[in-house]
This record gives sequence, structure tokens and C-alpha cells, in this order.
Amino acid sequence: MTFYDKLKFDANGLIPAIIQERTSGRVLMMAWMNRASLEKTVATGKTHFWSRSRQQFWMKGESSGHTQTVKNIAFDCDGDTLLIQVEQIGAACHEGYRSCFFRSVEGSGGSFQITEAQLETPEQIYGKR
Amino acid sequence: MTFYDKLKFDANGLIPAIIQERTSGRVLMMAWMNRASLEKTVATGKTHFWSRSRQQFWMKGESSGHTQTVKNIAFDCDGDTLLIQVEQIGAACHEGYRSCFFRSVEGSGGSFQITEAQLETPEQIYGKR
Repeated sequence: MTFYDKLKFDANGLIPAIIQERTSGRVLMMAWMNRASLEKTVATGKTHFWSRSRQQFWMKGESSGHTQTVKNIAFDCDGDTLLIQVEQIGAACHEGYRSCFFRSVEGSGGSFQITEAQLETPEQIYGKR
Repeated sequence: MTFYDKLKFDANGLIPAIIQERTSGRVLMMAWMNRASLEKTVATGKTHFWSRSRQQFWMKGESSGHTQTVKNIAFDCDGDTLLIQVEQIGAACHEGYRSCFFRSVEGSGGSFQITEAQLETPEQIYGKR
């Protein structure tokens, strides 16, 4: 039995993958994988995902250079979520922040604020498009 | 504008919430919230979720006593995932492990192993049912 047999992909054949920086424990992002992108991640040691909006594979960093090298792949009790620890080059977030979770709620009224510095602008990362 | 305005709930009115132990950085679990369970989480400071299988609210720890006290709520760039840092009492996993992510893949063949000790059995947590 392999770990693939323990996984439950959803009705669209997808499973959410939480990406965590191994050294800091920081949660960087969450994205979706199908079985093929997970197999590619295992085979290459670089994270690959499935874009639900674009309906296509993508390797993290393919256009930005901000790749993720896989250090550990864990899966949860229900087999419906992955936790992948990585080494991250540069900003994980396409908005130029180290983590996609760069905003936090303040107090119970629902206001929020940015909690970290922007490393680069999207234009710096991807060029003018 | 509140952070609720930045969130995108899915077609079922749900958003995934990654639960992370604040002190250790450990990712404990992932579960789903609807707007009402998120509002209840903000108002009470204890995590509340929506069970997709049972179609009902649940407060983490309501039967086990393993509650989660909210320390921070972050949300991602796309507004479609929450990252909630908590103080966790006891095992976060219903199988008695500190984290639901207690199994990791070993090597590229897909084999896996348990990576942490079971703190309690489900029978110890929930009693014989």
C-alpha cells in the first residue's frame, strides 16, 4: 500500500496542499493538486499544482523563479489534505510577500492589517505584462 | 471594509481553515468554516467549524475537551484560505495524535510511516461508543 491509496481526492479530483517553510514553520500558501501534479511533485522534488481557474498544471516558480524544494510530504488522518514542507526561494506569494498569509484580523470588529514587508512588487517578479 | 469582505467562500459557502499551533508552528489540522462558524470563532475566541459530512456546526473540543483558543486569524492573498493560530489543549486529531498530519511519505516509492507518538486512543478521548 502506498500513501496514494490513503488519499481522498474531491469530486474534481483535487486535494488541498498546505505549503510550509521547513526551517521557520511558516505557512506560505495553500494550493490544489490532482494526482498527476502530486506524482510530479514526488518525482521531481519541486512542487507542482493544478490551477482551478486556468485548468492547467503549474510548477511553483516556473515564471517567477520562486521554486519550492520538497523536504517532507505529510497527509492528514482523513487523507483529504496534504502538508508539504519546503525550502522556498524568494517570495511564495504572487503579490511579493514571503507568505500569502500577509494579512491578519485585528480585534473582534473584523478590521485587518498587513503584518509583513513586501519583498518585491508583482511587476518586479513577473515583469510588465 | 472588514476582512469578511476580502474572503471568497466556495460554491457551498465554505472556506478552508488551516489550524496552526502558535508556539511551535506545527500545523495541527485543516477544517472547513462557513461564514457563521467563522463569526462564532471571532466572537468566542474558540474555533468553530462546519462539518461537511454531518452538515452541522461543531466547536473543536466540544466532545473531547481538546479546544483551540484563537491567537491570530490570517487570510491569504486570494481570500480563499484562512490560517488560524491557536493554543491547542491535548490532541488536535480525533485519532489521538497531537497533529492530524502524523504520517509522512518516505522516499519516492510512496511508502509512508507514522512520525509521532499517539497521545491517547480514540476510546480514551471519546469513551466507548
